[in-house]
Amino acid sequence: MSGPAQAGTRRASLLIIGGGEDREHDMQILERFVALCGGPDKRIVVLTAASRVPAKMWTIYDAAFGGMNVGSRKPVHVASRLEANDAAMAAEVAMADGIFLTGGDQKRLLAQAGGTRLDEALHAALARGACIAGTSAGASAMSAHMLADGKADLHPEKGAVSLGAGLGFLPRVVIDQHFSQRHRLARLLTVVAQNPYLLGVGIDEDTALLIEAGGSIEILGAGAVTVVDGRHMVSNVADIRNRAVPEMVDVRLHLLPSGSRYGAAGDSATPAAFSDFLNIVTNIA
Amino acid sequence: MSGPAQAGTRRASLLIIGGGEDREHDMQILERFVALCGGPDKRIVVLTAASRVPAKMWTIYDAAFGGMNVGSRKPVHVASRLEANDAAMAAEVAMADGIFLTGGDQKRLLAQAGGTRLDEALHAALARGACIAGTSAGASAMSAHMLADGKADLHPEKGAVSLGAGLGFLPRVVIDQHFSQRHRLARLLTVVAQNPYLLGVGIDEDTALLIEAGGSIEILGAGAVTVVDGRHMVSNVADIRNRAVPEMVDVRLHLLPSGSRYGAAGDSATPAAFSDFLNIVTNIA
Repeated sequence: MSGPAQAGTRRASLLIIGGGEDREHDMQILERFVALCGGPDKRIVVLTAASRVPAKMWTIYDAAFGGMNVGSRKPVHVASRLEANDAAMAAEVAMADGIFLTGGDQKRLLAQAGGTRLDEALHAALARGACIAGTSAGASAMSAHMLADGKADLHPEKGAVSLGAGLGFLPRVVIDQHFSQRHRLARLLTVVAQNPYLLGVGIDEDTALLIEAGGSIEILGAGAVTVVDGRHMVSNVADIRNRAVPEMVDVRLHLLPSGSRYGAAGDSATPAAFSDFLNIVTNIA
Repeated sequence: MSGPAQAGTRRASLLIIGGGEDREHDMQILERFVALCGGPDKRIVVLTAASRVPAKMWTIYDAAFGGMNVGSRKPVHVASRLEANDAAMAAEVAMADGIFLTGGDQKRLLAQAGGTRLDEALHAALARGACIAGTSAGASAMSAHMLADGKADLHPEKGAVSLGAGLGFLPRVVIDQHFSQRHRLARLLTVVAQNPYLLGVGIDEDTALLIEAGGSIEILGAGAVTVVDGRHMVSNVADIRNRAVPEMVDVRLHLLPSGSRYGAAGDSATPAAFSDFLNIVTNIA
């Protein structure tokens, strides 16, 4: 599967993966990542800082990218803020063609890397046209307002979910992962009820939302991406007690299955109701 | 809890319960049913035809309504279409002040009762101003287009759910129950993807949607009611293969927690985006 971004071309892109991407068989998403980086001759780094088992993470992706004949692949392990400010490491990240953020805990990743040279280097790489991919915690970390903690099992629940400061590639989005598999719609609606400025984006396992500079998005992999847009919502959330279920009237929901494309590179028509979302979500920085 | 319908007043109403209503402790929903019927001195019948264990069903509701001092309470057991056409039984149902449809299997209920004198008697009772309550299968049976079979666990799936002909009190609605507890949003979206004429209404356990002639609705009980409105939706469902996940852009979702009221009797403001839904759902027949 090649898709619109052929090896050799390059523009900034985010590949936001809902966890559990295939690493051994078809590897559709990881193959696409390599293509977005410009092909197997490009420089790819794997940032393991979200994980408490970074060596194990590297073993997995070393094997996967090795199997795709990526010659220049290496891990970036960051065990402290001091290490995240290492100038040589940061220079290497800034010059990478592709950066892969592993799973783990997004709070750990941001606590180590937020506001460091590594953080700046990630933005510099994106500005140079790199592809930044992140899976699970690495996906959640990509937005400015990051889903940090909390759960809401059956219904949205006021105060049940907390946000933190993420890496900030996407300014008006909040990302959740393992979305359908872990029944996280109630959690995402919880965020949107309280923060209707943010568009909620839920990404399934082995599924990715690809956002390309230039204004297009694409869904790839096994599942779907769910978008909840609360900007038109009428809600009583400001008035109810903590932990109560808010009224939420007129939330706009979009279900985007794998294979969907919208925007500049799209071969699906972009519905009018959706173009505004597209403008927001493709505003990557 | 009395609510707007006091004992003594009477107008036609539907009390649509998502299953698992409390029958032993606070009995909020069943108490409300008795009030909607006009109070404990009114005639209540319990229709067990959805169930394969009708005697057991009657034991449960006999105890519950007995505990509320309902003097005139009796079961209507219907084991065949012949029995569902019994004139004496039908006359009793038609003259009842309240009819309670138990759980079981909505297909069983409709196969026995659909198009019979019992069916006509239910409509006649409603026209006389009775309250018809239904729980679980009895809830699903209330709409004209009835969710009959099928499931969709993680995503909407073309062709995964089948509809049948229900009792037809609600012409443009499809009802699902045990909604949040069994994670049935994907199933309800499956129906709406293929049938955007229908508004999807998902009702949680121990939760009821009360619809009153005159144009008001109210949510009561422990959970919430979820509405999905696909009338503005853009979708590729007509073009994809069976069992594929449809694109669904701009589905309108309303989450209505217990305590919400809208319309004529409402003390919550009715948001503009919602009034059209209200008009449709209160069009009971």
